[in-house]
Amino acid sequence: MLRQTLGGALAAAIALSAAPALADEGMWTFDNFPAAKVAQAYGVKTDQKWLDRVQAASVRLTSGCSASLVSKQGLVFTNHHCVVDCVQSLSDDKTDYVKDGFLTTARTEEKKCAGMQAEVLVSITDLTADIGKATAGKTGIDFVKARDAAKGAAETAACGKDEAFRCQLVTLYRGGQYKLYKYRKYSDVRLVFAPEIATAFFGGDPDNFNFPRFNLDTAFVRLYENGKPIASPQHLIWQSRAPKDGEVTFVSGNPGGTDRMLTVSQLQTQRDLALPIGQLQRSELRGRLIAFGERDAESKRIATDPLFGVENSFKVFYGRQFALNDPAFMEAKRAAEAELRAKVAADPRLAADIGDPWGEIAKVQGPYADRFLRLRQLESGAGSLSELFLFARELVRAGQERAKPSAERLPEYGDAGLALMAKQILDEQPVDAALEQLYLGFWLSKTREYLTVDDAAVKQLLGKESPEAMAARLVAGTKLADPAERKRLWDGGLPAILASNDPMIQLALRIDPAAREARTAWETEVSGPTDRAAERIARAKFAAYGDAVYPDATFTLRLSYGKVAGWTHRGVTIPPFTTFAGLYDRATGAEPFQLAPRWVAAKDRLNPATVYNFVTTNDIIGGNSGSPVLNAKAEILGAAFDGNIHSLGGNYGYDGAINRTVVVATSAATQALEKVYGQTALVKELTAK
Amino acid sequence: MLRQTLGGALAAAIALSAAPALADEGMWTFDNFPAAKVAQAYGVKTDQKWLDRVQAASVRLTSGCSASLVSKQGLVFTNHHCVVDCVQSLSDDKTDYVKDGFLTTARTEEKKCAGMQAEVLVSITDLTADIGKATAGKTGIDFVKARDAAKGAAETAACGKDEAFRCQLVTLYRGGQYKLYKYRKYSDVRLVFAPEIATAFFGGDPDNFNFPRFNLDTAFVRLYENGKPIASPQHLIWQSRAPKDGEVTFVSGNPGGTDRMLTVSQLQTQRDLALPIGQLQRSELRGRLIAFGERDAESKRIATDPLFGVENSFKVFYGRQFALNDPAFMEAKRAAEAELRAKVAADPRLAADIGDPWGEIAKVQGPYADRFLRLRQLESGAGSLSELFLFARELVRAGQERAKPSAERLPEYGDAGLALMAKQILDEQPVDAALEQLYLGFWLSKTREYLTVDDAAVKQLLGKESPEAMAARLVAGTKLADPAERKRLWDGGLPAILASNDPMIQLALRIDPAAREARTAWETEVSGPTDRAAERIARAKFAAYGDAVYPDATFTLRLSYGKVAGWTHRGVTIPPFTTFAGLYDRATGAEPFQLAPRWVAAKDRLNPATVYNFVTTNDIIGGNSGSPVLNAKAEILGAAFDGNIHSLGGNYGYDGAINRTVVVATSAATQALEKVYGQTALVKELTAK
Repeated sequence: MLRQTLGGALAAAIALSAAPALADEGMWTFDNFPAAKVAQAYGVKTDQKWLDRVQAASVRLTSGCSASLVSKQGLVFTNHHCVVDCVQSLSDDKTDYVKDGFLTTARTEEKKCAGMQAEVLVSITDLTADIGKATAGKTGIDFVKARDAAKGAAETAACGKDEAFRCQLVTLYRGGQYKLYKYRKYSDVRLVFAPEIATAFFGGDPDNFNFPRFNLDTAFVRLYENGKPIASPQHLIWQSRAPKDGEVTFVSGNPGGTDRMLTVSQLQTQRDLALPIGQLQRSELRGRLIAFGERDAESKRIATDPLFGVENSFKVFYGRQFALNDPAFMEAKRAAEAELRAKVAADPRLAADIGDPWGEIAKVQGPYADRFLRLRQLESGAGSLSELFLFARELVRAGQERAKPSAERLPEYGDAGLALMAKQILDEQPVDAALEQLYLGFWLSKTREYLTVDDAAVKQLLGKESPEAMAARLVAGTKLADPAERKRLWDGGLPAILASNDPMIQLALRIDPAAREARTAWETEVSGPTDRAAERIARAKFAAYGDAVYPDATFTLRLSYGKVAGWTHRGVTIPPFTTFAGLYDRATGAEPFQLAPRWVAAKDRLNPATVYNFVTTNDIIGGNSGSPVLNAKAEILGAAFDGNIHSLGGNYGYDGAINRTVVVATSAATQALEKVYGQTALVKELTAK
Repeated sequence: MLRQTLGGALAAAIALSAAPALADEGMWTFDNFPAAKVAQAYGVKTDQKWLDRVQAASVRLTSGCSASLVSKQGLVFTNHHCVVDCVQSLSDDKTDYVKDGFLTTARTEEKKCAGMQAEVLVSITDLTADIGKATAGKTGIDFVKARDAAKGAAETAACGKDEAFRCQLVTLYRGGQYKLYKYRKYSDVRLVFAPEIATAFFGGDPDNFNFPRFNLDTAFVRLYENGKPIASPQHLIWQSRAPKDGEVTFVSGNPGGTDRMLTVSQLQTQRDLALPIGQLQRSELRGRLIAFGERDAESKRIATDPLFGVENSFKVFYGRQFALNDPAFMEAKRAAEAELRAKVAADPRLAADIGDPWGEIAKVQGPYADRFLRLRQLESGAGSLSELFLFARELVRAGQERAKPSAERLPEYGDAGLALMAKQILDEQPVDAALEQLYLGFWLSKTREYLTVDDAAVKQLLGKESPEAMAARLVAGTKLADPAERKRLWDGGLPAILASNDPMIQLALRIDPAAREARTAWETEVSGPTDRAAERIARAKFAAYGDAVYPDATFTLRLSYGKVAGWTHRGVTIPPFTTFAGLYDRATGAEPFQLAPRWVAAKDRLNPATVYNFVTTNDIIGGNSGSPVLNAKAEILGAAFDGNIHSLGGNYGYDGAINRTVVVATSAATQALEKVYGQTALVKELTAK
């Protein structure tokens, strides 16, 4: 599953060069798409009109996914796993939409997804020079503060108080460019259709990131404004025919993040420290969730969705870790870096401008290692997955930060971001106490373990209590599960926060100074110097390779091109298509290879030869989940929902020989909607001329 | 905790040289102890008589620990964590000796520990030349088979049918020497005294491998023969006085294994593949056990001991992984290897004899990576911790192998090892069905995950069943929890196995061909060539450094020397002693910092200044748990039970500046036995003249 923060590294070390992108490589911004290269390779014209049409129908979901408009009435096509949190939230111990699917027969049955917002990119403006001016001559944390203040000011200036828009100042090429992305936003997103999880995620974790694959990982939501579906004449055309082997394909979506521009010293720190620590903790949490889910049926229902999330991340980072653990992969990275440095060194004027950012970044790796665990346990990963703790931390910080001018706040509390934050905190959503206790106890015990019992912050965190007892007490005692209480504290600001006797608020307050200290130290010694040096590495790349390079992914709109194609690895060739017949062959009757009852019943009504899932050479990563996969005419052939196992190395570099995007075909979705789910109105809407 | 397979790597890269051991470094065999060096450094004479006396009172426990004889009536002193499995086995849902401690007031109350055997080393004979002759000219699996057959034959020849002895042909210096170790064995070991786990393991996992420390990690067992305690005039003297700062100390015990002689390419494979895979699985299992234990009080009781075991291993391998992840550490290893290779290259005759074993081993790393997961999931780690599966596998293999002549069997089924194996399979011991289901389900699901659904062996393993359903069915259906059924199958041999309809036996039979294939491939392509090359690296070391090198640990008797000393790290100095007063200061009332009720009650009867735990510079590792820590006169000052966090890097190299052995003092044990537990008879026996 390619939801954001989940991305992709077992690739052979082929396309890792810092040099211009190879065939089919690249997650290109819409304002620097290599149309000439595509025309040459595939004979397809992607002119400005073509690009504008695709951009206008491409949707970003705040659940960390991509999607597309597919009807005139605001209907949006995405993946099941992009809305599964919503499906879970709408379920309870009596009605389990995750297990049974969510079907509607009328608009009135469409249900709002808490916290979800949909966004359509309307413009891109280059502000690189402005940010450059604002940060000139600054270093370390002064640089970080000046940059973040300038970014926040630019966002506010661009969107003003217009609630219909969201503005984000995006750092591209790790500081090589700063661009203002303006989005039309839709904060009333309602669920229209979701299949059973046994259908959407057939094969479960064992098949995840593998192929052949047999998943109807699709869902539909609808965008509303003022209680009505929006009008969306700019939607894409739904194409029900199956794709052809070798057919050109485009993926328009929001890859969440890649690390292809990291230096070798940064990659070593990822390999030796950050990835292993994250994976060890994730693996334990996975185990806790599995055993928790085995208690009884209701525990299993509650744990299913979170477990899939953790297992998906685990596999993603497993792929990344073992890509970097491959000596040949690292050697290719070393060679690429040496090539770029040689080009710089060969041009004295350039060398004088660039200096030695690689050496500067290498020096930062010591402080990185020293500061990493504190940052992770107290700040960036505080609370693990506990919603209640995150509510508390955000309420506390929002209270503190909103008392300051926007430019002086922590950047995530700047004016431009507050509306979405408020929505995500205040929307009503179920909170499961048992899971919360699990997450909180996990975080507290790992913090004690990694920082040790004798650490001052740990003592402050736990006092004389055990992690388990504290987690139980806090979850039982807090009122933050109630959206009215959250609203009271949000509206009341810092005075209300300081007056609160809520134990979770008190915990967040108690640990806040140590958490801020960890963050400040990080920005001063690690991220500030790194970002400053990375700007010059980007300049070196532009100088060496012109605009034939694409930026690392940033969960902003990108376009990739490629074709439908299987692959061959270690002598085994994997064909590009699977069919409904393959699904029925693979089913065992045992989870996660169990067919949903509707599919057992529908078998004879389906054409067994229908193309179900297929693979393409498009270069994507986590965040691209739900992205429309388009043909030359920009018609939708499917939704990207996964990468193959080799694509996981894509976080660090693309290998066109074996990296593949995994797509659920519209041909299969159309037939399933009609023949399995009886969703004739939905099909009619999709195929309306 | 330093039980075997648990060992120690955050050390700075100081004493990693292949050159002669530095001060206090080394786990020396009793037939090559550097007495002259010790005399020079500490002014202590350790002549043959001294060594013989220590050897005769040093005990190896088959629970993976060390111990010592401390009275004329077969009383043995060891760690609590070395007998905790026994304490757990003797407990049930009504009587919890783990929680409450196990106390006796008469010999009749001493209870037998299932599966445990105690062994005292009586002689060492060099058979290097014999094994050399038997393997001359052989390579790959032919070498492995010839060597193992020759070893088995030597063991049988040395012990014959004498049931009182056990013979082991030990490979030292990774093939540089082969020596026959003959042990007097005692297979009736009874529990005499064990404190509450809250006392033995105060501070639990958070304090494990840390210091300051406050653990009464002690226990006593007694050796019986023919229903009576053995006579043991050769016991060591119990010294109740506290050790002094700087006092010389010796540790006599059985370090389980180290990897100090591995080549750089082998260490890279450990770093990049073997350690991370093991830790990721261990971490998930840990999470499963934690959440399992949180179900209810009885689940917690059952899971406590296994969880400690898994957490201990986790910390040990965490230390190892991050030692190898330290670039400076690896650089020191590279330098040491280069030094040895240069010495070889400088001597043409030596160079001709040695060849390039480093290059040969580097070439083996590819096959290692290709074969590792299959070997781990199907053979070396099959069944995870499931006793029932291991019973089934050993019964199946014993049935198959005993039908062949001893020399043609898998070596662990050779005649010399069968008696102990039979004891461990046939002794009555409780098996917990819920835990068994957890372990088995875990193994089956990880095997599917790591080998993939489409693997032929996975299909054979699971058929159309889920791992969870199969685990439940097998644990419910097998009769192997009944020792009578195990005896029937052991005695009945292969015909009884093949006729059995026990589902666990059938699983073990079904997967056996794939497991054997994985093992054969490993021996042919990986371990055979590696071991053959390692023999020549050992020869190179002897040639370069003479006998001033010690072999990697092999769970055989070793002697290390050092002194009582704290240490300084990053400007912080840790004193060498803790006291009872410190224990009461550290107690919070919350697990695992909760005092046992007896200790709360005894507070005023104890001298707060009593030395409780202390640290020494002795070079030890997992397997040394329970080792007597001796003064110059070979009197017992305590029992080693742990290393500090820096000592975990000791698996790959010793750093005398910061690596420390953690010891529980006899001064504290004596006082606790008297004042907390009222064990006056035991103290009288210990201090009898």
